[in-house]
Amino acid sequence: MARVNEHYLKLKAGYLFPEIGRRVRAFAAANPSAKVLRLGIGDVTRPLPPAILSAFHDAVSELGDGMTFKGYGPEQGYDFLIDTLIEKAYAPLGVHLKRSEIFISDGSKCDTANILDIFALDNRVAIGDPVYPVYNDTNVMIGRSGIDYLPCTEANGFFPGVPKERVDIVYLCSPNNPTGAVATKAQLKGWVEYALANDAVIFFDAAYEAFITEPGYPRSIYEIAGAARCAVEFRSFSKTAGFTGVRCALTVVPEGVTANTPDGERVALNKLWNRRQTTKFNGVSYPVQRAAAAVYSDVGWRQTKEIVNYYMGNAKVIREGLAAAGLAVHGGVNAPYIWLKTPGGISSWDFFDRLLTECHVVGTPGSGFGPSGEGFFRLSAFGDRDDVVEAVERIRRTLR
Amino acid sequence: MARVNEHYLKLKAGYLFPEIGRRVRAFAAANPSAKVLRLGIGDVTRPLPPAILSAFHDAVSELGDGMTFKGYGPEQGYDFLIDTLIEKAYAPLGVHLKRSEIFISDGSKCDTANILDIFALDNRVAIGDPVYPVYNDTNVMIGRSGIDYLPCTEANGFFPGVPKERVDIVYLCSPNNPTGAVATKAQLKGWVEYALANDAVIFFDAAYEAFITEPGYPRSIYEIAGAARCAVEFRSFSKTAGFTGVRCALTVVPEGVTANTPDGERVALNKLWNRRQTTKFNGVSYPVQRAAAAVYSDVGWRQTKEIVNYYMGNAKVIREGLAAAGLAVHGGVNAPYIWLKTPGGISSWDFFDRLLTECHVVGTPGSGFGPSGEGFFRLSAFGDRDDVVEAVERIRRTLR
Repeated sequence: MARVNEHYLKLKAGYLFPEIGRRVRAFAAANPSAKVLRLGIGDVTRPLPPAILSAFHDAVSELGDGMTFKGYGPEQGYDFLIDTLIEKAYAPLGVHLKRSEIFISDGSKCDTANILDIFALDNRVAIGDPVYPVYNDTNVMIGRSGIDYLPCTEANGFFPGVPKERVDIVYLCSPNNPTGAVATKAQLKGWVEYALANDAVIFFDAAYEAFITEPGYPRSIYEIAGAARCAVEFRSFSKTAGFTGVRCALTVVPEGVTANTPDGERVALNKLWNRRQTTKFNGVSYPVQRAAAAVYSDVGWRQTKEIVNYYMGNAKVIREGLAAAGLAVHGGVNAPYIWLKTPGGISSWDFFDRLLTECHVVGTPGSGFGPSGEGFFRLSAFGDRDDVVEAVERIRRTLR
Repeated sequence: MARVNEHYLKLKAGYLFPEIGRRVRAFAAANPSAKVLRLGIGDVTRPLPPAILSAFHDAVSELGDGMTFKGYGPEQGYDFLIDTLIEKAYAPLGVHLKRSEIFISDGSKCDTANILDIFALDNRVAIGDPVYPVYNDTNVMIGRSGIDYLPCTEANGFFPGVPKERVDIVYLCSPNNPTGAVATKAQLKGWVEYALANDAVIFFDAAYEAFITEPGYPRSIYEIAGAARCAVEFRSFSKTAGFTGVRCALTVVPEGVTANTPDGERVALNKLWNRRQTTKFNGVSYPVQRAAAAVYSDVGWRQTKEIVNYYMGNAKVIREGLAAAGLAVHGGVNAPYIWLKTPGGISSWDFFDRLLTECHVVGTPGSGFGPSGEGFFRLSAFGDRDDVVEAVERIRRTLR
């Protein structure tokens, strides 16, 4: 008699975005003439720039020629992409990685979920609150109970401080989704010291590092001394280079990061992750890896940065427009997310409904990311400029 | 103190293909002038045909235009691809699936590994022997002990019969890797009846269905009455259409397949798999899905079949050539793998070394797929014709 993984039944039925989708569809059906502007889901909207397209096409053409055809690639990714990342993404930060320490994948969502495979179930895990829901759900799915939630509030600048209690694994996301906060060097130093002192592992999600515009903030946790002994870092081309539909990401597992066996032996996580990926994954599409490498060419990077700057221009419009309308606004300077406090202390979902029905603007209720998100609201900078300007204008008029 | 998943430490260090790689590299280094012919790993070698390339290019171009740009797609895959599969791949077999029953992914290796996520650990699992190593290793990784191995021998035509003992989950692969055997309708009917009688779930790996050349053999387990209540089917574009470097596959989870909760409640696996995929996966690259859909266009399918026929022509050369040389040869008619009995009862690895050193031909030792593979050897039909002809000629000369 086959039996299901019962932990799946503990998951809440409604994931945040499906519920948003339901409400928007209902509104649109009842108000067919309304022009609904979407600043909700964090999906990119600008097309791929020419240098990346060109490399993508060239690689597709290679597959049509017997002399250049590629079958299975290395599960860990091609060296041409790994070397590019070592040289262009990490070396300028003073971070020196080996080829064996970078694993190319099809997405950070997969990686932040799959990394749990190589850890024992009885680890004590801490995640932020509010937080990217996947961190929580994937822990529930494997039957982990008693997750520690670290509140991210106005008091701590929406980035969690180290807990008093000891945890074994902690997820940190900087720049943060959903709060738009970015960790300082001092904050990350505190976490690295905590991890080394407690023999803990940090999962550092840097999916939004490309959106840091102010100097001095770390783009990689490996800029902090000691992190190469306690941290795994996730990065993605999704938001950096508009790859949400193309699919490419990377996970860094330095050879010096270890954890314990029940007998107290130290095991390198790199070895375990390599075994996981080679056994359960077959590598990223070859043309996609070529397109990803082109992001870091001189022309590709210039074109990519233009798009990032465009989105951050949107963020400025939202941030300044809503602040001028009297809202308390956070984020949007080093992250593509604006985290605003709902006016008059109304709930996140009430503000969602008000924005949808009165302004025809879709955002994301902060409470959907965790209880400490209640009373907050996330707007995303990924729209088209005209829509963003109009959305902000509508909100200003309504709140006036 | 972070703790690793100790089950990973139970895995054998040397995966089959790395060990083959080591021996081939050592031989090539000592014999730099030898022309080594590789009929080992099952990787495709022919370039993508024009119709598929063209759709691939068109979709890449769409990503460069703001009007046609695609961000996140549905995690389950785009309807255009799912509808194509329903209509072109399944309806002609008399199998009628719903959109919600097909999940597009980046590979069958991932899918056959990840499907274990939705089942309880205490299920009793049966796999073939010999078998695709991933089935075994992924069960070991999650800590499942006491796997039942079903011998595939000359006596049962290299396809396992139903066991006397009751199991909860069974992996079946037809056409089979590595033995090249294909299950008859009667064999699959026996398995479906067993599954329904024992409330078991069948994982049916049909990655090689495109290579069935003789009529009457089932290409999908859903051709068997009752299978839509007990079977999950895995298919792939990897071997069918040369997508090993492109990455696209599908998993079929009919809505009628259920398993039990500890309280004896029935839960649809479709719902759980959908939750798994939407939470832990972000869908397949958009241009890859367009390229995959083009496989089933009229022109695309004709071009794809030509390549399949080319490989099966290779299989015929190997099968007939080695049979003429006096070897006992199986498979190679409805599968791209030839499963031969080593001459004189020598071990699989001894035959590997002999073939490598005397013929400069690389194959795969049968014992690498499980103990019942000892004394057998796998040759793959995925090479270039000239190489295949030369390899067979060298083996014939040596064995004469």
